Amino acid sequence: MADNSLPSAGPVDPALIEDLVAASRILAQHGVLDAWGHVSIRHPKNPQRYLLSRARAPALVSAEDIMEFDLDSNPVDQQGRRMFLERYIHGEAYRARPDVNAVVHSHSPTVIPFTITDEPLKAVSHIASFLANGCPCFEIRDVGLTQGLLVTNSKQGAALAKVLGDGPVALMRGHGNLVVASDIQQVVHRALYTEVNAQQLATALSFRRPIKYVQPDEAQDPKRLGDSWEVWKVQAMGTAR
Amino acid sequence: MADNSLPSAGPVDPALIEDLVAASRILAQHGVLDAWGHVSIRHPKNPQRYLLSRARAPALVSAEDIMEFDLDSNPVDQQGRRMFLERYIHGEAYRARPDVNAVVHSHSPTVIPFTITDEPLKAVSHIASFLANGCPCFEIRDVGLTQGLLVTNSKQGAALAKVLGDGPVALMRGHGNLVVASDIQQVVHRALYTEVNAQQLATALSFRRPIKYVQPDEAQDPKRLGDSWEVWKVQAMGTAR
Amino acid sequence: MADNSLPSAGPVDPALIEDLVAASRILAQHGVLDAWGHVSIRHPKNPQRYLLSRARAPALVSAEDIMEFDLDSNPVDQQGRRMFLERYIHGEAYRARPDVNAVVHSHSPTVIPFTITDEPLKAVSHIASFLANGCPCFEIRDVGLTQGLLVTNSKQGAALAKVLGDGPVALMRGHGNLVVASDIQQVVHRALYTEVNAQQLATALSFRRPIKYVQPDEAQDPKRLGDSWEVWKVQAMGTAR
Amino acid sequence: MADNSLPSAGPVDPALIEDLVAASRILAQHGVLDAWGHVSIRHPKNPQRYLLSRARAPALVSAEDIMEFDLDSNPVDQQGRRMFLERYIHGEAYRARPDVNAVVHSHSPTVIPFTITDEPLKAVSHIASFLANGCPCFEIRDVGLTQGLLVTNSKQGAALAKVLGDGPVALMRGHGNLVVASDIQQVVHRALYTEVNAQQLATALSFRRPIKYVQPDEAQDPKRLGDSWEVWKVQAMGTAR
Repeated sequence: MADNSLPSAGPVDPALIEDLVAASRILAQHGVLDAWGHVSIRHPKNPQRYLLSRARAPALVSAEDIMEFDLDSNPVDQQGRRMFLERYIHGEAYRARPDVNAVVHSHSPTVIPFTITDEPLKAVSHIASFLANGCPCFEIRDVGLTQGLLVTNSKQGAALAKVLGDGPVALMRGHGNLVVASDIQQVVHRALYTEVNAQQLATALSFRRPIKYVQPDEAQDPKRLGDSWEVWKVQAMGTAR
Repeated sequence: MADNSLPSAGPVDPALIEDLVAASRILAQHGVLDAWGHVSIRHPKNPQRYLLSRARAPALVSAEDIMEFDLDSNPVDQQGRRMFLERYIHGEAYRARPDVNAVVHSHSPTVIPFTITDEPLKAVSHIASFLANGCPCFEIRDVGLTQGLLVTNSKQGAALAKVLGDGPVALMRGHGNLVVASDIQQVVHRALYTEVNAQQLATALSFRRPIKYVQPDEAQDPKRLGDSWEVWKVQAMGTAR
Repeated sequence: MADNSLPSAGPVDPALIEDLVAASRILAQHGVLDAWGHVSIRHPKNPQRYLLSRARAPALVSAEDIMEFDLDSNPVDQQGRRMFLERYIHGEAYRARPDVNAVVHSHSPTVIPFTITDEPLKAVSHIASFLANGCPCFEIRDVGLTQGLLVTNSKQGAALAKVLGDGPVALMRGHGNLVVASDIQQVVHRALYTEVNAQQLATALSFRRPIKYVQPDEAQDPKRLGDSWEVWKVQAMGTAR
Repeated sequence: MADNSLPSAGPVDPALIEDLVAASRILAQHGVLDAWGHVSIRHPKNPQRYLLSRARAPALVSAEDIMEFDLDSNPVDQQGRRMFLERYIHGEAYRARPDVNAVVHSHSPTVIPFTITDEPLKAVSHIASFLANGCPCFEIRDVGLTQGLLVTNSKQGAALAKVLGDGPVALMRGHGNLVVASDIQQVVHRALYTEVNAQQLATALSFRRPIKYVQPDEAQDPKRLGDSWEVWKVQAMGTAR
């Protein structure tokens, strides 16, 4: 329930908001986000707050759409705006993971097949080596029968965050995934390459031969994320800044 | 046979016609409709009439192309315009289903493989949970040998509507599908996500492991269809209104 | 060998040339033609002549690029222009098939897998019912070892035309296909839907269940090709005329 | 380690630099290069030098980004620019192969599945007949455990060049490939058609029938690369020159 008396954590650097907007549009342009996914960042001045668009398709999100929430996912100043029903995914991920500063929830199209079978989604390419240990899968029926399979309260969000553990990605059965990272560039990279890795693994599986996954001792967070960020942002926004 | 003396059910709100045009273009842009599919709505003032474009590729349909038909699929005022041969699909769906106000007939590309095998097309994602009970498949040979497999009269249309039953989607063997809904936004959602769900299920099937379909007790009509409608319409029409 | 003394069969209606240009660009835009495929028409005034672009990527072909050839594939007036090495495919198809007035040679991407296996490429959708009897496959080694697998003389072209027989499409092992039709609209339809049908059949085959092919007694040449031609031409040329 | 006292091999024809830029953009536009791949050419005046962009996404590379390196991959005049960590792939390929004048390193999406299984990547289409003898696969663990699987020194680059041998393409396990050729047009052709051939072979393999690969005695370097180069350059650069 919205508590309009919550104090704000204060204004945020417009460049950071611009990157949050760019993240939405990049992931929409690359087909990771459909009309309903969302990207958030933790408030840089107060770890008990996060920033997320009002309910709007990611391809259309603008700086004016960004709202502030507490970790119970109450809006700081709702101003009558409609909110994402599943914002609890974000609030509970920030609560459970102090190291996390950016969160994506997507219906990543080639990830979904891995959520509805027991086929493991693990890294097959060095760019996706953050998946070297695989992805746990959240079964919402473990929390209780849920029509629509949506995560629409803190209890469900906390159960999902628990399945995520200390990893970068949790699958959500029949639904999509939760991706977390230390910053906005990394979360975009992870959300996109979870999809790309899923495509490549699906093709490799079709050969019906043993798969050489990237081994955990070979994993390394990619360097130079600024190079991919630059081109993705130019392509999604028409400018890199 | 066209009966040009049919009385019209009267003018329709231009905003509704605009949404009908947008529906054609959205589904064409997303690859659900090829050069020959069609979208219709029931006339808001007379349930015995429906509105459908003259014969024209969906990507090119404009407000001036919309014609009025009775449930026998006779045009109210043909004005020499060529009509879709398969408009009987619409007329008979409206006749059989008083709850239906919008109809799509498509050659949805990834749906066709499910029409030519016994592999069931059922929901694997919450966005497509309207498919939780699967899709019946219409075999036109049951009505009689039909060169071209087209539904071009009321008898064939009624047989298809009977196979549809009270569900949202019927497959048509070697042809495509029939999608029905309570309004234009919902029918676009259903036509698009029948295709998306088919793609995701096809990938999951390639893993050759058991599939966890969305269960009927988990199904729920998606809320917030306005959010997807907004972005799809902007992308297809260049404006949301 | 070019014979520059060949008499021309005379000027051709610019609208027909425009449609030949549009055919190249449509098939390039839909990914059926890559940088090397080609489309031709028989000369409307002389069945011993055909019209084909100089050697140029189909996406770039313009009216000025169209040349006239005899059925030995000699140019009527070469004017120093480079010619397609494989134009003999066209000349021999026109020689062998008086009913044919339009020819496409493509490296249609999803057709190639059917040329390198014994999996039959047959119609699974009514739009592609011209494939109800399947496609024969030309094995160029039957004519003799050919580096590059190209059809670059009349003997090879005639052998290919013989494999084509009286059908609409012949596959070419490790290479692509030959598509013939009675006019330019039909040959574009056939070239495009041979690719689309191949995609749909490949997906259906992945289910590893029996396939219900379109039966020969269900085949029918599609009507209303003008409707698809209109939209494809608008999208490829920016205008329908 | 950068040695800023290296003498330059001198200025290069701007048309050649333009083609190097075009190569980056063409391969990005066709999805062969993602945000991190790279294309280089050997310096036309000094075989001990090569030309490669500063670290930048290939879709954004311009003539001003091109730098000169020696075969140890030291920059001639770094001017503070960031360099590709994996430039050693290029330097060692030029050192090992005097016949090579152009090099691509990519994460070609459909090639990666062939790097993580023992399924051979061999030519199935005449356009890709340069792959008739298959592609060896570089296992970086053979050089030593490498976090991130990157080739970031001359020792690793030399080991990769050794696996390449005298062929056109080497796969890199869990990473991508190395493609070499005698000039820029050929290397773009090879990089693109290694991806296309991988897609076609993957589809053919899904039929689970014997594959008819292009035989080595059928291989032939494609002629007329200028025709494809023209259209690809127009599409990537907006002009052919």
